[in-house]
Amino acid sequence: MSPFDLQTPCALLDLPRLRRNIEAMSSRARDLGVDLRPHLKTAKCLEAGRMATSGHTGAIAVSTLREAEFFFTGGFQDILYAVSVVPGKLQRAAALLTKGADLTLILDSAETARSVAESGRELGVVFPVLLEVDCDGERAGIKPDSPELIEAGRALARGGAELQGVMTHAGASYDCRGDEELAAMAEQERAAAVMAAERLREAGLPCPVVSVGSTPTATFAERLDGVTELRAGAYMFQDLFQAGLGVCSEGDIALSVLTTVISRRPERGWLITDAGALALSKDRSTAALPDDELYGVVCDAHTCAPIDELRVVGVNQEHGMVGAPAGSEIDWDRFPIGTQLRVLPNHACMTAAAYDRYQVIDEDRAPVAIWERCNRW
Amino acid sequence: MSPFDLQTPCALLDLPRLRRNIEAMSSRARDLGVDLRPHLKTAKCLEAGRMATSGHTGAIAVSTLREAEFFFTGGFQDILYAVSVVPGKLQRAAALLTKGADLTLILDSAETARSVAESGRELGVVFPVLLEVDCDGERAGIKPDSPELIEAGRALARGGAELQGVMTHAGASYDCRGDEELAAMAEQERAAAVMAAERLREAGLPCPVVSVGSTPTATFAERLDGVTELRAGAYMFQDLFQAGLGVCSEGDIALSVLTTVISRRPERGWLITDAGALALSKDRSTAALPDDELYGVVCDAHTCAPIDELRVVGVNQEHGMVGAPAGSEIDWDRFPIGTQLRVLPNHACMTAAAYDRYQVIDEDRAPVAIWERCNRW
Repeated sequence: MSPFDLQTPCALLDLPRLRRNIEAMSSRARDLGVDLRPHLKTAKCLEAGRMATSGHTGAIAVSTLREAEFFFTGGFQDILYAVSVVPGKLQRAAALLTKGADLTLILDSAETARSVAESGRELGVVFPVLLEVDCDGERAGIKPDSPELIEAGRALARGGAELQGVMTHAGASYDCRGDEELAAMAEQERAAAVMAAERLREAGLPCPVVSVGSTPTATFAERLDGVTELRAGAYMFQDLFQAGLGVCSEGDIALSVLTTVISRRPERGWLITDAGALALSKDRSTAALPDDELYGVVCDAHTCAPIDELRVVGVNQEHGMVGAPAGSEIDWDRFPIGTQLRVLPNHACMTAAAYDRYQVIDEDRAPVAIWERCNRW
Repeated sequence: MSPFDLQTPCALLDLPRLRRNIEAMSSRARDLGVDLRPHLKTAKCLEAGRMATSGHTGAIAVSTLREAEFFFTGGFQDILYAVSVVPGKLQRAAALLTKGADLTLILDSAETARSVAESGRELGVVFPVLLEVDCDGERAGIKPDSPELIEAGRALARGGAELQGVMTHAGASYDCRGDEELAAMAEQERAAAVMAAERLREAGLPCPVVSVGSTPTATFAERLDGVTELRAGAYMFQDLFQAGLGVCSEGDIALSVLTTVISRRPERGWLITDAGALALSKDRSTAALPDDELYGVVCDAHTCAPIDELRVVGVNQEHGMVGAPAGSEIDWDRFPIGTQLRVLPNHACMTAAAYDRYQVIDEDRAPVAIWERCNRW
């Protein structure tokens, strides 16, 4: 009933699944002939970062300057801060460069390129920069065929900054359905990055780095000609959304939330647990997929096998309502108050962010380590 | 353009608004003739707790044992842990009692009542307990007319525990629309708690405490006869959902997220900011209201006045997409990259949880203090 002697809710990280996910992506990068730059925005922990870079160059990507500081202090050297930088963050970035980090920034406008180069000159550093390219219209980036790409590249060539190449992220892969669409999106991502790189080179600008990636496109890419490095992060933990996309199976999901039944409401058809909105996040990514997993799939705490299609059907701040599908009934005798359960998350990046550490468990589901996370900004 | 010399995203707490919200609820409790027990699940900070208890008994409610430990260490004595306790949490609760805290637990079944009393006897403590009553079918609690209420009360009368009364929370107030429905829900909440208390007393059991509350019912209750204390928490910060319910106005919202424009996509109609899903949460509470505020209302960073009906229309982990309403256009000249903006949140409890501190600002919008939060479990 309570296999874990842990206060709930807490985040469990299944080490064998993590290892398997990391090895699979590591092999893919090798097979595709590109360097792997794991994105640590999901895991945000040193141990997972070391495991994910093993056998590769040691390069990583991060989503906040706080992560950059954390991983540099933890021994990582080659760090891409993969969110558009703004003038107000350059002093903090310069401090990392001065301490010896190989920190690379990204930006997506000639306006920002000029201010980064100017700040570099003022601060007495040279900011390495990748230009962010928009391959799918989903978020940030310069269109690969835009005159602004060359203008931004040239603005970086006047001291204070150094153009190192281009990067893109096909966020639209999350809207793809089926292997063929995902493979086509991977090709679209590749083609946009390569086109941008070729245009910069034709303009006489340097472009040694051509960086692409998202977990779905990294999983389904058929070729990466012209690309030098692959970035992905969600693959380490996987989640219900990735499983719904076909990127992994539910049995690959390495992150789960351990929770306890705190109340039972047979007249409502609910077990109530102590994993609510703060413990799971309010992410409902799977609502966009054919199989909507509501706020999460409920599993046996020991084996992590899904139980009778139970789902977290609603959340309040510290309460999670667990229900059975329409037409079926919870096996009430099996779940007295105090029963531990596990919940697989919609979106590992959001759920993991609720915790400052992972309880790492091994093949026997025994806690073997505590790994600290780097949260916030 | 950048009135605050702060790294973004960060949480701003407007001290004049906080004071005004606290004074309003404080007066309401006095007018209704009940004690106020502020719920600190939203603020999770000592300074806001001290302000909210000023002029009252000093009693507070919390949503995690970690909060109970944090507030006890910070000088609070009378603490209600207002989520159903389970056997696995009793040792931690007992440790607080042993240190001298007046910690009260809640539970909602005869089964848990028996195990709490048994644990109390084993651990050599007496657990003070309120029975949780279900007034609206929304979450946990024993129905006020159920035989289990008396059974649970009697299970607490055999040593190791002490029945102190009843509590209920009308979560269904969040589904009410209009002042009349809210006032009726407040009466339903009051009546359920009072009925449960009377039944316990008729059965010869003690019931000195009759505790009710939610921010909407506390705001709209017309009378609280038979009630001894009022619990509410969201009122301190307020949020877009409370404003949509009619509990407050947008100008009362004390919590906002300070963010920076990091990219501009005129062809998509977006400013992109560094306040994404982690900085704002994925809470979409206002989707259930007539005015859906999407992921938040975008305001001038200095004045906190809403700008041209701009909303956060989409979020990725570290990116917030800001758009204008259909048929209108962003005033692009006003928002170069680097511009600071503020975002009012859907749900303050969820947004505040992303931060480990508040940047407290005064009448002149000058940062005057940093207040630490107690997150996690």
